[in-house]
Amino acid sequence: MKSYKKELWFNTDKRVEFINITRKVQKALKKSGINEGLCLVSPMHITASVFINDAESGLHEDYKRWLQEHVPHNPSLYKHNNTGETNADAHIKRQIMGRDVTVAITEGKLDFGPWEQIFYGEFDGQRDKRVLIKIIGE
Amino acid sequence: MKSYKKELWFNTDKRVEFINITRKVQKALKKSGINEGLCLVSPMHITASVFINDAESGLHEDYKRWLQEHVPHNPSLYKHNNTGETNADAHIKRQIMGRDVTVAITEGKLDFGPWEQIFYGEFDGQRDKRVLIKIIGE
Amino acid sequence: MKSYKKELWFNTDKRVEFINITRKVQKALKKSGINEGLCLVSPMHITASVFINDAESGLHEDYKRWLQEHVPHNPSLYKHNNTGETNADAHIKRQIMGRDVTVAITEGKLDFGPWEQIFYGEFDGQRDKRVLIKIIGE
Repeated sequence: MKSYKKELWFNTDKRVEFINITRKVQKALKKSGINEGLCLVSPMHITASVFINDAESGLHEDYKRWLQEHVPHNPSLYKHNNTGETNADAHIKRQIMGRDVTVAITEGKLDFGPWEQIFYGEFDGQRDKRVLIKIIGE
Repeated sequence: MKSYKKELWFNTDKRVEFINITRKVQKALKKSGINEGLCLVSPMHITASVFINDAESGLHEDYKRWLQEHVPHNPSLYKHNNTGETNADAHIKRQIMGRDVTVAITEGKLDFGPWEQIFYGEFDGQRDKRVLIKIIGE
Repeated sequence: MKSYKKELWFNTDKRVEFINITRKVQKALKKSGINEGLCLVSPMHITASVFINDAESGLHEDYKRWLQEHVPHNPSLYKHNNTGETNADAHIKRQIMGRDVTVAITEGKLDFGPWEQIFYGEFDGQRDKRVLIKIIGE
């Protein structure tokens, strides 16, 4: 069995931001030399989500609007605010969107349907953030 | 390390539909010959969810009603509609229900609690759909 | 390839309760002798979630309140109630929070960012409950 780890670093400019990381995951997979296995992609932060969906900016706006309507940012609504933190909404949004994704690796490629793309979704950004890629297989 | 891949194909008759795929995953596991490992089950579509829950039709109606109340289908509510697509709600519902599940394989079986069943949940159906099963282990 | 399985058992006192199981997962990992691989942590119940987030009690109250507001417990609201079950809300809450988490194992440790902790989230407790840990790797 082989295993391969890669951390992606990037700066998120906005508080809420979705970044397409598909090509970076494909690059890591190529470097791993693994042909058959599983690839875990997970955020190293608890106000963020790695999710798979469409690379369509209108849909991304729909996600952000839905989350904002159902989980308002207003810190005074949340007990987490008593710790001095103002990002309780981001912790809730990340649970709704999901933490991590696992992708099948077949014949050296991400085994995807035609529209699947991997995104890092940040809900409390404006600083450096990290994503972990871990691939195991042969 | 062994790996095994199987695609399930089926036609979804309705726009929103849940299909029990537990037996098909068990059959794939048997064919794989893998006794200890992990089994990823994921939809190859971005308006669908593979999830684990109860095989109880009333509960499935409760899921559908809750999702419909909180994420209305009405395409005019969504920016994704500007692309000509009318399924933004389905992309949001799939994130809430989750994309994929990973199941432990122990002694050649899906290592499940007594009520766990695997479902393909489609939110924009009425055509052919695919599920990917990838099993790695020994 | 090595594999290791461990079941955690515990009693949940309240109907809705979050239990930090990070140390128990770390202990299982140490016992497994696995240095590089993947660790799946999943509930064996369908009214529960294993999730990764912050060990902050105020935030946990925020999760519980948000879920209660958006998915009321009131059994008469749900068709699942017709089976004699009164926990439809718990099945819905578990889907929103997610079923399972997969954690990368690197150099014998859970490969985590600084704030990641693993919780068992129960939404229909007051009895014995089980969590499955499955680790594969080398």
